Amino acid sequence: MTDTARGSGVVDTYGTVLDLIRSHGTVSRTELVGRSGLTSPSITRIVRQMLEDGLVTEVGTGDFTGGKRRTLLQLNASARRAVGVLIDEVDVTVVLTDLHGQVLARRVARGAGNRIPERVVPKVVAEVESLVQGEGLDRQAILGVGVATNGLQDTREHGLRADLHATEWQHFPLARVLGEALGCPVVTENDATSAAIGEYWTQRLPTAHTFAVVYMTSGFGLGLVNRGEVYRGASSNVGEIGHVTVDPAGPECVCGRRGCLHAVGGNVAVVRQAYDLGLETELGLKGTPRSAPKDFHKISKAAADGHPEAEGVIQRAADALASVLVSISNVLDLDQIVFAGPGFGPSVQRYADTAAERLRSYAYVRAVHTTLVTISTLGVDAAALGAASLVLHERLTTNRPGSR
Amino acid sequence: MTDTARGSGVVDTYGTVLDLIRSHGTVSRTELVGRSGLTSPSITRIVRQMLEDGLVTEVGTGDFTGGKRRTLLQLNASARRAVGVLIDEVDVTVVLTDLHGQVLARRVARGAGNRIPERVVPKVVAEVESLVQGEGLDRQAILGVGVATNGLQDTREHGLRADLHATEWQHFPLARVLGEALGCPVVTENDATSAAIGEYWTQRLPTAHTFAVVYMTSGFGLGLVNRGEVYRGASSNVGEIGHVTVDPAGPECVCGRRGCLHAVGGNVAVVRQAYDLGLETELGLKGTPRSAPKDFHKISKAAADGHPEAEGVIQRAADALASVLVSISNVLDLDQIVFAGPGFGPSVQRYADTAAERLRSYAYVRAVHTTLVTISTLGVDAAALGAASLVLHERLTTNRPGSR
Repeated sequence: MTDTARGSGVVDTYGTVLDLIRSHGTVSRTELVGRSGLTSPSITRIVRQMLEDGLVTEVGTGDFTGGKRRTLLQLNASARRAVGVLIDEVDVTVVLTDLHGQVLARRVARGAGNRIPERVVPKVVAEVESLVQGEGLDRQAILGVGVATNGLQDTREHGLRADLHATEWQHFPLARVLGEALGCPVVTENDATSAAIGEYWTQRLPTAHTFAVVYMTSGFGLGLVNRGEVYRGASSNVGEIGHVTVDPAGPECVCGRRGCLHAVGGNVAVVRQAYDLGLETELGLKGTPRSAPKDFHKISKAAADGHPEAEGVIQRAADALASVLVSISNVLDLDQIVFAGPGFGPSVQRYADTAAERLRSYAYVRAVHTTLVTISTLGVDAAALGAASLVLHERLTTNRPGSR
Repeated sequence: MTDTARGSGVVDTYGTVLDLIRSHGTVSRTELVGRSGLTSPSITRIVRQMLEDGLVTEVGTGDFTGGKRRTLLQLNASARRAVGVLIDEVDVTVVLTDLHGQVLARRVARGAGNRIPERVVPKVVAEVESLVQGEGLDRQAILGVGVATNGLQDTREHGLRADLHATEWQHFPLARVLGEALGCPVVTENDATSAAIGEYWTQRLPTAHTFAVVYMTSGFGLGLVNRGEVYRGASSNVGEIGHVTVDPAGPECVCGRRGCLHAVGGNVAVVRQAYDLGLETELGLKGTPRSAPKDFHKISKAAADGHPEAEGVIQRAADALASVLVSISNVLDLDQIVFAGPGFGPSVQRYADTAAERLRSYAYVRAVHTTLVTISTLGVDAAALGAASLVLHERLTTNRPGSR
């Protein structure tokens, strides 16, 4: 595993076959020939290499099809381990995973808040080292570390441009600094994209599926996987649905426009609306910029518990997000939308139901196919898991930018 | 060339190499090895097949690099011909193209209007036959016909679900009926997606480019090519930017929501605004639903000629589209947006300038990279050309849905 990205136009036969084995669970060489479009000798050669690499194992035989019984292949889950890290304002989540994306161990530490990288990065290094050592592993057992963040990605510098709130994160070469400290390869990725990769990888979604993960932490993001290909656009800065206009007459947004989803239904906006209703004491809100995620969580919980005014506030936010998701679905033509991330809190079902109902009524494609709406079962781990799978799974890294 | 679509997870080595040769103009086998990720024997084998197929030719030698001079390869433009057809309400455009997407001949006929398929399809057949015979070719010289339409695509039936205005187009198996009449393979595609493919194919855009074509006929569409891969989503019904919300307090839209781009800045909306200003007599507007594209064109021309009130109306429509394009760019992270299609009329530069200015000010990625805004040089041919290239270019068809 290296961090050398390759442009498109590159044929990654090994990665394609690995992904087919992943998505099928168990599969024969004959099926791989049929599904990959590769020749039988090519499949034989690639599978032999995978067996040598220990990535796949042979697991007995499939149905009798007239000739000899076919040997089936599956991923050798314990063949590789990687670490995934999510750095956001509220939490730093570190997971150790195997090749199936199974979480073998997890640590959660204090988030970046508005602290500078020099204070946050050593903590991340210590968390990764504690996790690895706690499992009785040494660093050599780890293929690498994937890091998901919510900042504007700078894939050329493998760092961030902004958004983790201290301006010192601008141009901070996160991948290089972490890599030097940990002595292993480090790749970085947008948190929503990471969550989509985590969902795709661990939920065995079919390769022909087009789906998006709507991800909420302190802000919104959308990760997109189109028929087995992670959509990264020009520079991995995709899915900024927080800056899709909901209402041009709405409040000013940090981005300079008016009425973006972030300004209308983001956590700060929701907290402000709760204050406008005088709910701050009853719900125990703090009302500072840094407390917004925790304040939002309290409002989301109150709404889930049936507090009528909290329900109203959360419903308006869910309506705003649903409106954006109908618009975005009309552009992206999605099979499925998955709600994920730590941000939605206990009202996540209300968000999902609202979006599902709007899509049933208004999605352009509704006469052709449904748009399934689900809630991720990965909990807060989706982004960290996806970041780890970036390290585990070459194929998902072949269309990474960085060396364009 | 067949119409058998394959799901993703399929490795199309031949198509990948063909696309690399296309995008480079001339290229050596050594460069193809470096850029494709394939082995030297594989490249040798694929190129030998392409030479046998007549798709590429050897064109002398490149720079001296220490060893022997390298033979360069390029597409053999005249090796294949295909027909591309755009069927929309206003016009039917038929083009004959070679492997470079050069238009060898063109015919334009009356559009579908609100006529039923049984009246339109025979005319299309006659136009295609006239075009082919007029060039002294027989049908066998044509690989196939690609058809771009603005309807809701039904890729399973290779037909349409709606939108060409007569309801008889619902479930009409356009590809099958045309194929039987013409005796050659027919593929269908969304018009905006076709225009994006046409742009990609004929303008030699780099394979690592992520760009969208904003396409306007009687409605809006957006075609997306991400790093050499056509984005088709779940069912080829992508890019419906006409049904992205601009203003939730805006007028009702045909889709059931309020204030979609179509309802705020589509041609019917623009014509209505011109009527509200009393411009109908001065500009010679007819004001019927069917006259909307032509009425819009007159308003667009008046604006381009400096008519102040027409400028105001068109500017508001351009503002609405620009707002949507900023939102969409924030989701898709685009290198470039190309304005295309017959719909914008003489004010297309105003639309492009407005979008460019908004993107410079507000695009989320503006600190990382610019979003280039250009106007297609393909004129009204973009969609028909793209549809033809679907037939010419296997690779661009490998991720077509239909046999998912």
